[in-house]
Amino acid sequence: MDQTKGKQSIEFQEGVHILSGASIVGKKEGEGPLGSCFDLIGEDPMFGCQTWEDAESTLQKETAQLAIGKAKLEKWQIRTIFAGDLLAQSIASSFGIMDLEIPVYGLYGACSTMGEALSLGAMAVSGGFGEYVLSITSSHFGSAEKEFRFPLEYGNQRPLSATWTVTGSGACVLGKKGGKARITGLTTGKIIDYGLKDSLNMGACMAPAACDTIYQNLMDFNRSPGDYDRIITGDLGEVGQRILFDLMAEKGFDIKKQHMDCGIEIFDNAAQDTHAGGSGCGCSAATFASYILPKLEKGEWKRILFVPTGALLSKVSFNEGQSVPGIAQAVVVEHC
Amino acid sequence: MDQTKGKQSIEFQEGVHILSGASIVGKKEGEGPLGSCFDLIGEDPMFGCQTWEDAESTLQKETAQLAIGKAKLEKWQIRTIFAGDLLAQSIASSFGIMDLEIPVYGLYGACSTMGEALSLGAMAVSGGFGEYVLSITSSHFGSAEKEFRFPLEYGNQRPLSATWTVTGSGACVLGKKGGKARITGLTTGKIIDYGLKDSLNMGACMAPAACDTIYQNLMDFNRSPGDYDRIITGDLGEVGQRILFDLMAEKGFDIKKQHMDCGIEIFDNAAQDTHAGGSGCGCSAATFASYILPKLEKGEWKRILFVPTGALLSKVSFNEGQSVPGIAQAVVVEHC
Repeated sequence: MDQTKGKQSIEFQEGVHILSGASIVGKKEGEGPLGSCFDLIGEDPMFGCQTWEDAESTLQKETAQLAIGKAKLEKWQIRTIFAGDLLAQSIASSFGIMDLEIPVYGLYGACSTMGEALSLGAMAVSGGFGEYVLSITSSHFGSAEKEFRFPLEYGNQRPLSATWTVTGSGACVLGKKGGKARITGLTTGKIIDYGLKDSLNMGACMAPAACDTIYQNLMDFNRSPGDYDRIITGDLGEVGQRILFDLMAEKGFDIKKQHMDCGIEIFDNAAQDTHAGGSGCGCSAATFASYILPKLEKGEWKRILFVPTGALLSKVSFNEGQSVPGIAQAVVVEHC
Repeated sequence: MDQTKGKQSIEFQEGVHILSGASIVGKKEGEGPLGSCFDLIGEDPMFGCQTWEDAESTLQKETAQLAIGKAKLEKWQIRTIFAGDLLAQSIASSFGIMDLEIPVYGLYGACSTMGEALSLGAMAVSGGFGEYVLSITSSHFGSAEKEFRFPLEYGNQRPLSATWTVTGSGACVLGKKGGKARITGLTTGKIIDYGLKDSLNMGACMAPAACDTIYQNLMDFNRSPGDYDRIITGDLGEVGQRILFDLMAEKGFDIKKQHMDCGIEIFDNAAQDTHAGGSGCGCSAATFASYILPKLEKGEWKRILFVPTGALLSKVSFNEGQSVPGIAQAVVVEHC
């Protein structure tokens, strides 16, 4: 049964249901505008561990267990986990979900990973490859700064275009039936490179990819922006959002009314000194599970396009003078 | 249509066909026992580039194009690429396949990545999510030593349990029909941790995962080792192979007759000073595309179990004293 739609999209003949969403975040995220939405807020940035990496693993493990519990399932009922994070060799995921003893496919899509995990999870359920699967990602401010930027002890200044990596994890259990929201389609992203090299302006690096995927989604499904209650990018931040508006306008679309960005929503940038906004795999994942999914479940929104965005760089590629290409993975989610 | 089989496996009702396999390797691999099997051998370890990372990206891009050409397709006919490598944030893949302008899902399964890429690619074709997809991975001795071990200039000694990262890439085009081999099933791996911490003995770290996945495959499909012409692990090497035999024997299975390891096959360990054998994503991928697939296509082997194995560590996890867990992703491939 061919389920492809247009050039880069899939339309699920039977939607894939989202049975539960769970989120755990750090203290700063808990103090932000979405604070009351998260399932749990950790007061200790180390989450009881000795290292940032271990803290992030713990965050991911707890969030997975919470999502499975909220779906009223036992862990052995989850056929496959689709998981990833930002760290080199995805160690936050490996060490995080190992103890669950559930079969795993590891993913890497930078901050677009929740879009990829939901996409592949939905494909697995739709194709008959498992009754229930779990899609999960995480990020941690401490482990990400260590991985990509500067030692925290430097206390270095950050340009206003920089984003603040969210300490958080978001997870969803997907299945053939149940729940009040379902994934009805997706658009797989291409890697888009405008040649930008500033890793402290990742919004600008990712905006072209967001534009490319959103535009292709509208073409493939023959929709206009108004067919979505919201078009929600992952972590473009305020700089990236402006660029996305300009790029979409060049293609003849005005998405200002529908657009929302998880990175802009999760922090109060002025009060919390987070500059352009939040970022990281955990930013879009935690915002989706805590804020977006409940609005769909209640029917407040009927249909949204969720488009996590990723910046494809490493310390090595940056130091070798490479550009920072972007990628964006889109998922269509509807109330049911 | 439920396609699950047993606890961790999938049996494709209609097999997913392998239309082509392509491989490109470095000079040392070309001088090894499989030298005459590879499509191309690069004399220049830099593949015309300025950095090891860029060299690996070029290797991956050329191999992708070769596989697409051998399947007699144009790149726009490939719906999705499933790609990954060993480097932090998978930069070899991102920068390698970017220019192909094909939608991408990035994967991370350490050296098990080719098993994961073939599994997810087969699920995508079987589920009706694309007529043709490409599964690809790569590794490079220079970029891997830089990522995980010591600067090449140190000329450090290596214990005999250490493996030699293969410079190579392997790619396969999958589709609904065509070709003379097809994927008929898969077993998704769990992360298995025996608490070993020696990253210079990765065979020992990965053998328990290989055992777990192979055993589960035999249980799920109700098969004995003799039902496979070969059971082929990725890069256990000579040390890991002995451990795998012992662990399988504990479970009541003798797989000595059927077992083959890509890491043992690809180098002449005594003559080429590669100690326990070859390793890296590219080891199993290039061996599969160049040596295993042709034997299946010719009907010399009727059915094999291909089980790439991965060691889930990073510089950071190693330096923080963490163990090195393993994972193994199995694919059943048959002559047709």
